[in-house]
Amino acid sequence: MSLSVEELVARARDGDARSVARMISLVENGAPSLPLLAATLAPYAGSAQVVGLTGSPGVGKSTTTNELIRSLRALDKKVGVLAVDPASPFTGGAILGDRIRMQEHTADPGVYIRSMSTRGQLGGLSAATPQAVRVLEGAGCDVILVETVGVGQAEVEVAALADTTLVLLAPGMGDAIQAVKAGILEIADVFVINKADRPGADNTYRDIQGMLALGERAAGEWRPQVVRAVAVKREGIDDILAAVDKHRQWLVDSGSLTGKREKRAAVEVEAIALGTLRARMGSFRGGTPLSALASRVAAGELDPYAAADELLKTL
Amino acid sequence: MSLSVEELVARARDGDARSVARMISLVENGAPSLPLLAATLAPYAGSAQVVGLTGSPGVGKSTTTNELIRSLRALDKKVGVLAVDPASPFTGGAILGDRIRMQEHTADPGVYIRSMSTRGQLGGLSAATPQAVRVLEGAGCDVILVETVGVGQAEVEVAALADTTLVLLAPGMGDAIQAVKAGILEIADVFVINKADRPGADNTYRDIQGMLALGERAAGEWRPQVVRAVAVKREGIDDILAAVDKHRQWLVDSGSLTGKREKRAAVEVEAIALGTLRARMGSFRGGTPLSALASRVAAGELDPYAAADELLKTL
Repeated sequence: MSLSVEELVARARDGDARSVARMISLVENGAPSLPLLAATLAPYAGSAQVVGLTGSPGVGKSTTTNELIRSLRALDKKVGVLAVDPASPFTGGAILGDRIRMQEHTADPGVYIRSMSTRGQLGGLSAATPQAVRVLEGAGCDVILVETVGVGQAEVEVAALADTTLVLLAPGMGDAIQAVKAGILEIADVFVINKADRPGADNTYRDIQGMLALGERAAGEWRPQVVRAVAVKREGIDDILAAVDKHRQWLVDSGSLTGKREKRAAVEVEAIALGTLRARMGSFRGGTPLSALASRVAAGELDPYAAADELLKTL
Repeated sequence: MSLSVEELVARARDGDARSVARMISLVENGAPSLPLLAATLAPYAGSAQVVGLTGSPGVGKSTTTNELIRSLRALDKKVGVLAVDPASPFTGGAILGDRIRMQEHTADPGVYIRSMSTRGQLGGLSAATPQAVRVLEGAGCDVILVETVGVGQAEVEVAALADTTLVLLAPGMGDAIQAVKAGILEIADVFVINKADRPGADNTYRDIQGMLALGERAAGEWRPQVVRAVAVKREGIDDILAAVDKHRQWLVDSGSLTGKREKRAAVEVEAIALGTLRARMGSFRGGTPLSALASRVAAGELDPYAAADELLKTL
C-alpha cells in the first residue's frame, strides 16, 4: 500500500511510528516528493525544542543521549533522536553502536530514534537534517535530540540547527588549547564533562571555565554552562536537562529564539538552493561540463576561477 | 610598496617567504585579485606531493607534523605546511599551539608554515585550501602537508585535496566502532597510531587491522598501511614517510594519480562556482531576498523548498 504524503503526515500525527520512519527515509533518499512533504509539514515548524549534542569520538555521546531520553520520558515528553553521520558520503551512515545502545527505547511509542545518513540528499547534512527535524516536529515530538560525531563543519551545522547545543568532553581527550582549536568554545551553549569520575576531570573543568572567563561577552549574552556527568552511572543527567532549560529560558527572555530560528531557516533554504544548482552543474563522474573543465584545470591549462566562470555560464 | 600578482609569484619562485605569505593572505581574504593569482599560478599545478594529516584533537597532529618537517628537510625537500582550522567561520583560525610547536622551523628558508583560516573566502575550506596549495606549488615546494583538526566534513575535504591522507589515532581515544562511525576508514591511505608507547596501543593497532581485514577491496586497490609512532620521541617518523612514498608509488603505478587530481580540480571549481552563487543569494544578515524568505519559513508560512525555488528565481 502506497500512502500519499498527506496520509503519512496525518498518520504520524496519530502516533504511527512507521509513517515517521517512511518520511525520514524520503528525506534521506532525496525523494522527488520532498517539496510536497515540506509543504505539508510547514504548519508544524518550530513546535519542538531542538537540542544538538556533539563531541569527539569516545566521549560518550550515545550513552548520554540514551540517558537523556530516559529522563525526558520520565517527564512524559515525546522524544525524537537523530543520530547524524557527517561522514556519510562514503559510509551510508549505519551506526551500529548507537542502535545497540539505544535499543531499550525502541519499543516505547513516545520515542523515535533514527540513525541518519545524508547520502543522496542534495545539500548534504545541512539540507537533510532540518527536513528530518521537521518530520519529527510534525510527529508531535516535544524534544528532538540531534547527535553528531566529531568536530568541525558538522558541529557548526548542528549548532546552526539546534536551539541549544551540548558539547561533550571527557577527561584526557586533549587540553583546553585543543578545545579552542576545534572551535567548540564558539558553538557550545552547555559543556558536559562526561566520565567526570575519571582522573583529570577537575583539570578539564577548570580549563573550560578558564577559557570561558577569558572570552568577551556582551551584556545579557549567554554564558555557556559547564555540567559534570557520568552517563553510564546515570549521574548528572538532570543537571544537563536543567542547563538546557535554563538556556531555553534565556533564548525566550532575550528574544534570541526567533532570530536563531530564522537563521536556521536561511541556512536550510540556501542549502536546498545550492543543492539544486549543484545538480545542474553535474557530478565529476558523468562526463559533464564540470568534469571536462576539471581535466583542463588538473593539466594546468586553465585556472579554477576561469573554469568556474565557464561552468556558471552553462547553468 | 604594492607588488603586482605577477611580481609576487616571480619573487615567491625565487624563494621570497614574504611574497608567499602575502599570496596566502590574498587567498584567505578572498581578495578580488584571486582569479588573476590563480591564472598566474596555473602552470605550476600538480608540481608538489600533497599530504593530508588529520585526526581528533589531542592525537598529536602538530607534533607529528613538526617531526615530518624535520625528516623531509634532512632529505633536502622544500616543505609547505597549511594548518587549516575548519571551525574558522567563528574563530578566524589563529592556532597558537601549532605555531609554538613548529616555531623551530620558522627560520628555515626551505619551510613555509601557515595557519589558515577560511573566513571571508567564498566556498570556505574547499575553495581556499586548494588555492593555498597552488601558492605553495608556485613557490616550489616539493611536499605540502595539509593539517586539519577533527573528524567529519573537514576530513573528507582534506582527503579530496591530498594525494595521500594520513589519519592519526592515539590509544584510548575511542574504540574501532568509533573509527568507523567517524568515517575515517574510508579516507585514510595511511593510519598512524601515535603515542604508541602508551597502554592500549596494541589494541588500537589490532582493531584497525581487523577493520581493514573486513573491508572489501577490488584487486589492485590500495590497502591502507598502519604505522606506529611516538612523535614526541621522534620514533616512527621515517616509517610514516616510507608509507607515504609507497602510496605515492601506487598512485603512479596504478594510474590513479591523474584521476585523483582531476577530481580535486572538480571539487575546487565547483566550490568556487557555488561560492559565487552564494554571494549572489546574499547573506542572512543583509535584508536580502534570502533573509526575507527565511523569516517566512521560520514562521511556518512557507516551506523551505518553495523558498529555495523563489530564491533561485532571483539569481
